[in-house]
Amino acid sequence: MLSKSNSKRITGLLQKKYRQREGLFVAEGIKVINELLNSSFELEAIYGLDSTSLRIEKGSETIFHKITPAELKKISFLKTPQTALALFKIPTQLPNVRQGITVLLDDVRDPGNLGTIIRLCDWFGITSLVCSTQTVDCYNPKVVQATMGSLSRISIVYTDLVAYLQQEQRPIYGTFMDGTTIYGASLPDEAVIVMGNEANGISNAIEQLVSHKIAIPRFGQLQKTESLNVATATAICLSEFKRGVSIEK
Amino acid sequence: MLSKSNSKRITGLLQKKYRQREGLFVAEGIKVINELLNSSFELEAIYGLDSTSLRIEKGSETIFHKITPAELKKISFLKTPQTALALFKIPTQLPNVRQGITVLLDDVRDPGNLGTIIRLCDWFGITSLVCSTQTVDCYNPKVVQATMGSLSRISIVYTDLVAYLQQEQRPIYGTFMDGTTIYGASLPDEAVIVMGNEANGISNAIEQLVSHKIAIPRFGQLQKTESLNVATATAICLSEFKRGVSIEK
Repeated sequence: MLSKSNSKRITGLLQKKYRQREGLFVAEGIKVINELLNSSFELEAIYGLDSTSLRIEKGSETIFHKITPAELKKISFLKTPQTALALFKIPTQLPNVRQGITVLLDDVRDPGNLGTIIRLCDWFGITSLVCSTQTVDCYNPKVVQATMGSLSRISIVYTDLVAYLQQEQRPIYGTFMDGTTIYGASLPDEAVIVMGNEANGISNAIEQLVSHKIAIPRFGQLQKTESLNVATATAICLSEFKRGVSIEK
Repeated sequence: MLSKSNSKRITGLLQKKYRQREGLFVAEGIKVINELLNSSFELEAIYGLDSTSLRIEKGSETIFHKITPAELKKISFLKTPQTALALFKIPTQLPNVRQGITVLLDDVRDPGNLGTIIRLCDWFGITSLVCSTQTVDCYNPKVVQATMGSLSRISIVYTDLVAYLQQEQRPIYGTFMDGTTIYGASLPDEAVIVMGNEANGISNAIEQLVSHKIAIPRFGQLQKTESLNVATATAICLSEFKRGVSIEK
């Protein structure tokens, strides 16, 4: 059973201001929910057709609310709802430390891109992500779907990037079409890597603060590809920064 | 003005069988349409609110059909329609040659992933992509949106991968969790690289035919990230195969 007030409360969470007020975010689908149940996130409630595939801890069964497919359709943010939707508590922010590699996002707007970048940071052991205030919210349902459990292991801060970078001691890398090839460069273990907006790249104000302009070379005779997607460019950069560590071992 | 029969014909192109029967595919949005107009694709017609931002060649203006926002909404495949929709002819297939690097996709199902991989191939100068028959169709509207002009520069073949690989002379690389680290490996200029399905990876039948099992190492103490997205894994693999060429130059 789903009360009208609960239904309204859940659909409100599509908006950032309601997520912040309630301190809750939404995750959908058995796979994503189980990933989050298996992380440090704290579960508030699950609404689903059936609890059999869910990894709910013993003693927490009352947190599961059986609903009908029509009720699920009403609260789901997905075009094709899955079989369950869960509410998790937005955690207290992890401490953001200025050491090792930090990734900075200068207005990344697409939720799928942010989700993929969070998952990549987790893969490459990077725990610190700093986003401009115009970057898409990491508790946006589409970001949550794309990151799965990784969201719980990364410290994500939203702040003014100029002020952040003015306090920075580490070298600041940014990708530009006219930068030095990343493949030949000797890359440090301690650095900030700035990735730009999908359409406009790195903004002028941030470009002034970049100490090392790098580029991912383009191959082929035609060289007509306009640009790499920001998530795939991040993948290649992080791989280059980390591959040296891996080979030394 | 949009006739009822034209409207029906366009919406039918969401389905692969109608795309194959008509020999046409759909692209939406000024940016994507202009990218395709600037490629070797042949334009059939454009339906739009206004032609001013479109790079239509002189003499081809009759190909533009002015329609209303309500008519565009009816034919658009996007949740939020842009200002124009174009029909392009599906080109005669480019020759697929067994030389250099060929990327093989073993049942990649997500249109966004296929689109990103096509764009990556173009960036890295790889012109040959071979897809299993269960891989999403490259003229699916969502794939077209993600690839933009790159689609015209890559030879994409759908075929039985086992039969294709049994005829292969080049080394066959595939990514597996238990493979050898890609960072230490000496990678050849001529190779086939197999990328697997989003949920299940490379299938058993194809695994039997892989001559070199490689892995992208995972970093960090927790090592809980389940897997890399197939498009970001492809980005890292292609970067590793090509970086040597770049450094030698």
